[in-house]
Amino acid sequence: MDLVLIAIVLGLLAVVYGVITSRQVLNSGAGNVKMQEIAGAIQEGAQAYLKRQYTTIAFVGVVVAVIVYFFLGPILTTGFVIGAVLSGVAGFIGMNISVRANVRTAAAAQSGLQQGLTVAFRAGAVTGMLVAGLALLAIAGFFYVLTTQMGLDLTVLEEKREVIDALVGLAFGASLISIFARLGGGIFTKAADVGADLVGKVEAGIPEDDPRNPATIADNVGDNVGDCAGMAADLFETYVVTVGATMVLTALLFTGLASDELKALMSLPLLVGGVCIVTSIIGTYMVRLGSSNNIMGALYKGFITTAVLSIPAIWWATDYAVGMGTSFTVDDMTFTGMSLFWSMMVGLAITGLIIWITEYYTGTQFRPVRSIAKSSETGHGTNVIQGLAISLESTALPTLVIVVGIIVTYQLAGLMGIAFAATAMLALAGMVVALDAYGPVTDNAGGIAEMSDLDQSVRDKTDALDAVGNTTKAVTKGYAIGSAGLAALVLFSAYTADLKEFFPNLEVSFSLENPYVIVGLLLGALLPYLFGAMGMTAVGRAAGDVVVDVRDQFANDAGIMAGTSRPDYARTVDLVTKAAIKEMIIPSMLPVFAPIVVYFAIYWATGSQAEGFAALGALLLGVIVSGIFVALSMTAGGGAWDNAKKYIEDGNHGGKGSEAHKAAVTGDTVGDPYKDTAGPAVNPMIKITNIVALLLLAALAAG
Amino acid sequence: MDLVLIAIVLGLLAVVYGVITSRQVLNSGAGNVKMQEIAGAIQEGAQAYLKRQYTTIAFVGVVVAVIVYFFLGPILTTGFVIGAVLSGVAGFIGMNISVRANVRTAAAAQSGLQQGLTVAFRAGAVTGMLVAGLALLAIAGFFYVLTTQMGLDLTVLEEKREVIDALVGLAFGASLISIFARLGGGIFTKAADVGADLVGKVEAGIPEDDPRNPATIADNVGDNVGDCAGMAADLFETYVVTVGATMVLTALLFTGLASDELKALMSLPLLVGGVCIVTSIIGTYMVRLGSSNNIMGALYKGFITTAVLSIPAIWWATDYAVGMGTSFTVDDMTFTGMSLFWSMMVGLAITGLIIWITEYYTGTQFRPVRSIAKSSETGHGTNVIQGLAISLESTALPTLVIVVGIIVTYQLAGLMGIAFAATAMLALAGMVVALDAYGPVTDNAGGIAEMSDLDQSVRDKTDALDAVGNTTKAVTKGYAIGSAGLAALVLFSAYTADLKEFFPNLEVSFSLENPYVIVGLLLGALLPYLFGAMGMTAVGRAAGDVVVDVRDQFANDAGIMAGTSRPDYARTVDLVTKAAIKEMIIPSMLPVFAPIVVYFAIYWATGSQAEGFAALGALLLGVIVSGIFVALSMTAGGGAWDNAKKYIEDGNHGGKGSEAHKAAVTGDTVGDPYKDTAGPAVNPMIKITNIVALLLLAALAAG
Repeated sequence: MDLVLIAIVLGLLAVVYGVITSRQVLNSGAGNVKMQEIAGAIQEGAQAYLKRQYTTIAFVGVVVAVIVYFFLGPILTTGFVIGAVLSGVAGFIGMNISVRANVRTAAAAQSGLQQGLTVAFRAGAVTGMLVAGLALLAIAGFFYVLTTQMGLDLTVLEEKREVIDALVGLAFGASLISIFARLGGGIFTKAADVGADLVGKVEAGIPEDDPRNPATIADNVGDNVGDCAGMAADLFETYVVTVGATMVLTALLFTGLASDELKALMSLPLLVGGVCIVTSIIGTYMVRLGSSNNIMGALYKGFITTAVLSIPAIWWATDYAVGMGTSFTVDDMTFTGMSLFWSMMVGLAITGLIIWITEYYTGTQFRPVRSIAKSSETGHGTNVIQGLAISLESTALPTLVIVVGIIVTYQLAGLMGIAFAATAMLALAGMVVALDAYGPVTDNAGGIAEMSDLDQSVRDKTDALDAVGNTTKAVTKGYAIGSAGLAALVLFSAYTADLKEFFPNLEVSFSLENPYVIVGLLLGALLPYLFGAMGMTAVGRAAGDVVVDVRDQFANDAGIMAGTSRPDYARTVDLVTKAAIKEMIIPSMLPVFAPIVVYFAIYWATGSQAEGFAALGALLLGVIVSGIFVALSMTAGGGAWDNAKKYIEDGNHGGKGSEAHKAAVTGDTVGDPYKDTAGPAVNPMIKITNIVALLLLAALAAG
Repeated sequence: MDLVLIAIVLGLLAVVYGVITSRQVLNSGAGNVKMQEIAGAIQEGAQAYLKRQYTTIAFVGVVVAVIVYFFLGPILTTGFVIGAVLSGVAGFIGMNISVRANVRTAAAAQSGLQQGLTVAFRAGAVTGMLVAGLALLAIAGFFYVLTTQMGLDLTVLEEKREVIDALVGLAFGASLISIFARLGGGIFTKAADVGADLVGKVEAGIPEDDPRNPATIADNVGDNVGDCAGMAADLFETYVVTVGATMVLTALLFTGLASDELKALMSLPLLVGGVCIVTSIIGTYMVRLGSSNNIMGALYKGFITTAVLSIPAIWWATDYAVGMGTSFTVDDMTFTGMSLFWSMMVGLAITGLIIWITEYYTGTQFRPVRSIAKSSETGHGTNVIQGLAISLESTALPTLVIVVGIIVTYQLAGLMGIAFAATAMLALAGMVVALDAYGPVTDNAGGIAEMSDLDQSVRDKTDALDAVGNTTKAVTKGYAIGSAGLAALVLFSAYTADLKEFFPNLEVSFSLENPYVIVGLLLGALLPYLFGAMGMTAVGRAAGDVVVDVRDQFANDAGIMAGTSRPDYARTVDLVTKAAIKEMIIPSMLPVFAPIVVYFAIYWATGSQAEGFAALGALLLGVIVSGIFVALSMTAGGGAWDNAKKYIEDGNHGGKGSEAHKAAVTGDTVGDPYKDTAGPAVNPMIKITNIVALLLLAALAAG
């Protein structure tokens, strides 16, 4: 059977799993009337936000599509549209299941921790499998249409170029939508969260998720549009870009292979993605609490099942697609199917290690979180200092893991080894996203339990589920940026290979001895900082708007605080929506325009196109070298701050209401935009910068 | 007259200026008995700290000297010893004048703002001119002995190598001492500051510098050992490394010049340093308040005088040493003396722009500080979020300035253009350090005024002087790291040139297409993060010790809070001393061992020496590309937080004691280790990494 068709069938399997599992979630009890009323308000707010966000994105998307069409032709534009639409769909479906599962998780938690975990995790699994399935379907389906239906021949230079362009277009569409979704959703969720906390917990002295707080629905809406829809779009993008880049690099490097062999090698990432959907689905059924009620342990069971089963599955896929003993030669390097298999094993190992390291840095039972909790005893300042120290430190081990991964896979199979390691990492996306997407569901479930006055025991259960959610949320971000560390090399190679193909007579020096390379590295390294600054400022500003609105509601209706009249939740949701949409535009444009500006500026300053390309290439690596640290430090640090607060709330260092707790709330507030706005958006930002550079090359070559 | 002799004479002039001006400072009135008593305690504490720090450093220094002697021979070791000793001397003298000027500034401020400014600035000028003078004397004197007394001929490969080795040794000695001084002093000053604030302001509710606080003397000692002695050692190092690297690069690149011509070109940086000592001295006499009492304006007058006079001075030096019209050729590039002159003008412009940008980000009259102050109204969390956003943002403009500087100077005169721009930046060190070193004097003066119950009007004057000090302190750090951005390229070129000379048959690829280059970049980029984490953690831990000690003193003697018995200041000073010395060792060793470990690890993993050198070279650039952002963000962010607090204390947003003020105190506490411990120590760390790489090359070649 055609390899690509197998991948398509397995992609469809993920969709079928999604449909069946979402039915199961929806069939679970939806709680009492009050709970449903609250959940309805959250649902309504989330849909209103997403509608407005998608309208804005659609507008930008159409403008970009027209420009792309004008400069780069119909096939690339088609890819762009497919990538953009499916990235949006992944986010939309994820959010829709999330806003329905939240209340059902709260209801199920009334029966027990296992029941709550089951509903929440199933909801996460729906999002996870749909992200992986839709991403696989997008690439495999498009590739199938191009190479089989349209009959493009990969050994004919011009036809191969069309396939490459199509895949780059697909990646661009996915990335552009995902940066908007990540950033818009991230600004929404943290503006609402920080605003609600400031005016509720700090000023009015009412607990989190108190129904008297007008911003509380907005806060819960935020979990869904940021942590769920934004995250889903982001991981969809990471999947498409990583697998797409591996295929593009294969097409660019293997110029001597026969058509069938090349097609088989290009299809291998798709087949690996397909078989890992099967192993991910099996893994989801293994998530159950043991006798110790260890939630993280239950999730680990699912992940480990998937990872272990993926070993023979990837073996089979490699052997079936290209043959274990088949040998390939690129430049001076010769390797076999077996080398690719081992490279993918390294990818699985990296994924496992990053999960483990992230748990260490964000779990309540280890030194980092406890050191932040302890430092809260001496005040707000020391809490933040220790949190920043941990966030800086947390970059070390993941970087070492990535570095060792690069060295080992490069020795196994050169650039293809690195590319396949990244592919194998993303092949587990279904499972990893499932672990992540369960977080916002339990977070919301806790909110609904609080607002509808459920028993404290229910809230205890949702809190326990949520604390683990903070870790799994950090895991996905570390995993996404870690894979970006590997994919960056692949994307950069695609850039240099493209450059040689488009401008064969241009001598471009990417040596560190070339000062324009240093200039590019510095400018690239600046981007995550500037982008982070914009994201943090946006959250601060939008949160300020929330505070003003809530103060105004309290001032105009004393009944709200008395509990006799209902606050105008929709007004706050609407306000945050507008603020988030407005704030997301400019930072999202930064990575789109930066590569273009840098290329032309250096070209203009030096009069040399080669130096322009050298600086642009260095920019691509500068943005990853700096971005990986900014993103890792922000996401792990934010998770650690959040869980240090939870650790204190569990009764340590004086517990809730103590001075240490107040300091920990400050740390949590600081960590919020770090981990949920600026940090995670760095990942799509890196990808966009890289893809825009590829598009620029194509446009310059065409012009 | 011999060019080098002129430089030596001008270096001596700086020392003479230092002696005369310090007499003037010491002849100023030293205040009443109580003031002198307090100043005596600070002096005693500072000397005790420095004695212990120097003992420890001496121990490490002797061990390192023996290793260096064993592997690299006597000349390099001699350089090492001279650099180390003079770096220590610069810090020692700076601190000694500072601990005497503080009380005199407080006394003079009783007469008026101008009088206070004069004493404090003169003290700063002594430190500044001694740093520049001693640094110039060290390089010029050593160079004179080598080339004239010992008669080493620069056109004979082996004799030139001895001169290069000597200069590298000098730089290594200076750097090693300065990282200890920066880090040890930085940990001391901020542990004492944060600890005193936490237990004083926050717990006991007594004002800053209240004599009842046992940690208050330690806090004031810290200003002297960290902001003065540590800073002086750091800038001494920056001067020696930058000017030394320019000379080394000249020696390595210009292999075709006649002996006299080469010596003249190598002496030009020394002569430029010399003439700028004269312009700096003239500048110091221009620092006076105008009718508007604008302190920053008064300091600007001095700086602008120096900068403007330096233009003709550098013109003369260039023309006298090498001739404006003389043309040189390196590789394919030809340039003239005039090109070098213009490159140095760019260096002056970069210095001016960095000062101006730093003032914008840390001055109380501009948007950044005001935005942090405003965000304090909504609490601790939003203050920190906004501060972090500003700290991220503050990296953008300096980076652009450095990038434009690199492009312009490279086009003017290739690598030599970049090297001479960095040299011109450091030539102004006398003036820049003078502006900086005035800060801790006024900070101390404020403390003494408070502790000895001087009139509030005196405290107002010292506070006004101190607020400007926060900006000038940030300026020096931005300036040091900015010059490091340029010097990094010079040091990297020295590394590649050395590599070619030592291993002529080794093909090393520094291209970004080489994965080991990426590995090196990532590991290099990690170093500032890890180093920053260690520095922040050390401050947190040592501050915790202070809190425990002070609580203990309060508990055991109720008379302290009542004001009837004197706290045991010396005990706290001693405790912080021990903690700081203990904590400084491991982080200081990180940049020493990292290059060695990375080289051997990659060599071992790949079996290729060339890849080991490629990764090591990339590490050198990774550490600067990441370090520049870490350092800039930390130093500017910390200054902004500090001045946001001062802005609120001036009566804005509710003034002292308001909720906004409490939030601003938290921000200030967070900013403390950022700006005074971790951030500034990144600069010597970058240099050490680079120098150790050069030493490793030499050792491997010799072995």
